[in-house]
Amino acid sequence: MAKLYFRYGAMNSGKSTALMQVAHNYEERGHQVLVVKPSVDTKGDKMLVSRIGLQREVDILLRPDESLKDYNIDYSNISCILVDEAQFLIGDQVTELWAISKIEDVPIICYGLRSDFQTNFFTGNKRLFELADELEELVTICRCGKRAKFNARKVNDKFVSDGDQVAIDGENNVTYESLCGKCYLDNVLRRNKVKN
Amino acid sequence: MAKLYFRYGAMNSGKSTALMQVAHNYEERGHQVLVVKPSVDTKGDKMLVSRIGLQREVDILLRPDESLKDYNIDYSNISCILVDEAQFLIGDQVTELWAISKIEDVPIICYGLRSDFQTNFFTGNKRLFELADELEELVTICRCGKRAKFNARKVNDKFVSDGDQVAIDGENNVTYESLCGKCYLDNVLRRNKVKN
Amino acid sequence: MAKLYFRYGAMNSGKSTALMQVAHNYEERGHQVLVVKPSVDTKGDKMLVSRIGLQREVDILLRPDESLKDYNIDYSNISCILVDEAQFLIGDQVTELWAISKIEDVPIICYGLRSDFQTNFFTGNKRLFELADELEELVTICRCGKRAKFNARKVNDKFVSDGDQVAIDGENNVTYESLCGKCYLDNVLRRNKVKN
Amino acid sequence: MAKLYFRYGAMNSGKSTALMQVAHNYEERGHQVLVVKPSVDTKGDKMLVSRIGLQREVDILLRPDESLKDYNIDYSNISCILVDEAQFLIGDQVTELWAISKIEDVPIICYGLRSDFQTNFFTGNKRLFELADELEELVTICRCGKRAKFNARKVNDKFVSDGDQVAIDGENNVTYESLCGKCYLDNVLRRNKVKN
Repeated sequence: MAKLYFRYGAMNSGKSTALMQVAHNYEERGHQVLVVKPSVDTKGDKMLVSRIGLQREVDILLRPDESLKDYNIDYSNISCILVDEAQFLIGDQVTELWAISKIEDVPIICYGLRSDFQTNFFTGNKRLFELADELEELVTICRCGKRAKFNARKVNDKFVSDGDQVAIDGENNVTYESLCGKCYLDNVLRRNKVKN
Repeated sequence: MAKLYFRYGAMNSGKSTALMQVAHNYEERGHQVLVVKPSVDTKGDKMLVSRIGLQREVDILLRPDESLKDYNIDYSNISCILVDEAQFLIGDQVTELWAISKIEDVPIICYGLRSDFQTNFFTGNKRLFELADELEELVTICRCGKRAKFNARKVNDKFVSDGDQVAIDGENNVTYESLCGKCYLDNVLRRNKVKN
Repeated sequence: MAKLYFRYGAMNSGKSTALMQVAHNYEERGHQVLVVKPSVDTKGDKMLVSRIGLQREVDILLRPDESLKDYNIDYSNISCILVDEAQFLIGDQVTELWAISKIEDVPIICYGLRSDFQTNFFTGNKRLFELADELEELVTICRCGKRAKFNARKVNDKFVSDGDQVAIDGENNVTYESLCGKCYLDNVLRRNKVKN
Repeated sequence: MAKLYFRYGAMNSGKSTALMQVAHNYEERGHQVLVVKPSVDTKGDKMLVSRIGLQREVDILLRPDESLKDYNIDYSNISCILVDEAQFLIGDQVTELWAISKIEDVPIICYGLRSDFQTNFFTGNKRLFELADELEELVTICRCGKRAKFNARKVNDKFVSDGDQVAIDGENNVTYESLCGKCYLDNVLRRNKVKN
C-alpha cells in the first residue's frame, strides 16, 4: 500500500530542489514520475525553479476546479506523483490524492509550506496534515541561526501581521523572511511576556 | 529555547501511557511536571487512566473559557508541561502554550488524536499542527496488521460516516476502531475505485 | 515487505514500557506476538519488568550460541516479534532477524541501548544500526533537563571512564546515570576545551 | 548546545545536493559555513559534485592523520560545519567533531553512506551512529520502486559479495546499485529462505 507524504517547510527550505532530486532519482532508475503544481501558484508558470539553480517543467498545472481524473492518467506507468506548492491545493484534491495512493498503489510526495504569514494553514496543507501517511519537515535557517518555522511578511521591509493570505514575494513591495518561533514572537507579534 | 511537542496518534496508540512514562522520567530525576487536561474530556474526571493499567491525577482540568494565566503558575519550578487529550484544547490555548514554551523556556508535550471519526481536525490539534516545533506520531495496529491512522466510529457495531464530532466511547452504543487508510477507505467510505 | 525496527535510547528511557504497550496493542486486536530477550541479560530472568510497574513474561530467552531456527517457530501465526535488551544480541542473530522480517514478512521491533558507558556499541546494537529499516530514538531526561543520550557509570557514586563493558546496575556499587552530551563531556570526560 | 547531525543514505540518495542546499540556505542569510571532506575520497579532488549538476569547492580536505585543530579555526565566525563522505572519517575525527559541536556550540552536519557493499560500517559512520545527536535518513529508490538501503557492488555488471571495502565507482569495471533489503537478499545474498 503506497503512501502519501507531505514534506513541509518554511520558505527557502529547499522544497523545489528536494522535489527535483527525487524526480532525478526515479528517472535515473528508468521510472516515470508525474509532476503537478496548483495553478494558483503563478510564479514560473509551467516551470519549477529552485533558488539554487535547478529547473524542470511541470506535467500538470492543476486548477482549483479540476480533479486528477480530468486528466485520464494511466497510473500503471507512473512510479511516483510529485506535487509542488501543495498548500494551494483545495481540500478535495488532497483527499483525491490520498485515495489514489491507496487504490492505485502509487506513492505521492507533496511539498509545500507549513503555514501562511499569520501562522495559519492554507487549504491544501491543512488537509495534508489530516491525511498524509508521513509528515517530514524540511528545514531552513532563521536570522538567529536556529531552525526557521514561520514565514514572516514584510511590506517595505517592515514586518506586518495583517493582510491577504496570498501576496507574491517580490511584488508590491512584499518580501518574506523565514523566522524561528522566538524571533517571530519578538519581531512580528512583539511579545516577550506571556499574556493572552 | 524550549519546544512545543505534539505527539499524536489514533485511539489506543498508548498516548496516556507515554505521557505517564515521561512524567515518571522527570520525577525520577527530581524534576517537577505539570499535567493538564481539557475539561471537555469528561472520561475519568481528574484521573488519567491508560488501558494498560497505569493511572495518575491531573493537576489542571482546563476549561475552554480559561487560559493558563488564570492559574498563576510559577514556571521557574516546572521542568515540563504535559497535556493529555490536547485535541480538545481551543486554538487560543494552543497559541498560549506555544508562547509559554518560548517565553518561559519550558518544554511542553501535548498528546492527542490526529483526527476525528471523519478524518477532520478538532480545534486543538489543528492549531498544534500549525505551531508545534516537533510533530511525532505514536502508532497502533489496524485489523490488517498495518499502522492504524484513523478512528472509525461504530454505532451498534456498524461503521458510520455521519454524526456529531464528539461521542464518548462506550456510551449510546458508540465504539471506535483504529484503522489504516486502506481499511478506512474500504470499510467506512466503501471506496475501492478512484473517483471524486 | 515487513520492517526491522530499532528503538534505542539511554537507560531509563522507557524501553520495556514501550515494548509492553506495543504487545498490548497487538493482543487487544487478537494478534499474537513473540517476545524475545538475550539470555545475557540476567536481570529479571524470564520476566520483563519496567520501572513504572508493568511486567510480562518473555517467550524466548535467546542464548548467544542459538539462532531462532532452533525454536521451529511457525511465523504464519505471529504478527510481530519484539526483542528487549537487543544490544546483547550477537551480530549474526540480528542478521537473522533482518532476514526473517523480509522473507517471512513479519515486523520485528528491537528495543535496546544505543551505547555502553564509554559511548561505544555492544555487538547487537552495532548490527542493528547497520541493518534496521527504521531507527527511532526513545528519550529520557538528563540532570540538566535536556535529552539524555549517554549512560554514565558510577562506582561508589563517582563517575568512572574505565572498566568492563557489562556491569549490572545495583551490583558491586555500580550505578548508572543518563546524561546529555554536554554533561557527559563535563562530568565523565572532564573536557571543556576542544582538544584531541 | 549545538547538535551533531548524521544524514545517511545509500549511494545516489542526493547527499551532496542536500549539503549544498544547506550551505546555500546559510549563506543566503549572511552566515558562513565550513565544508570538510575526508581526503580518502579522491573523487573530484577539492570539488563536491552532485549528479544533478551542482558543484562547490571544499574548504578542508581532511587527512586521516589530521585533526581539525591542525587548522586553527576561529569557530566564532562559523555558523555550521558541513562534512561530505563522512563515512571515511576516522573514529577520533568524529569524536572531535562531536566535542566541537558541544564545546564551541557550532552545529555540525555530516553526510555519508550508511554501510559498505557488504552491509558493514566504515570507520566514520560507525562512530557517527554512536555519537550523533540526530540521525536522519536520506532515501533513494530501488529497482523495485521501494526505498533503497544498501549499496550492492557489481563487477562487470554482476553482483559480488566479496572484495575490498573501498572500490571507486566507475574504475576497474566496478559499479554500484542501490537496493532495498529484499532485493539485496535476493540478488546479492541469493537467499529466499530463512537459514543461518
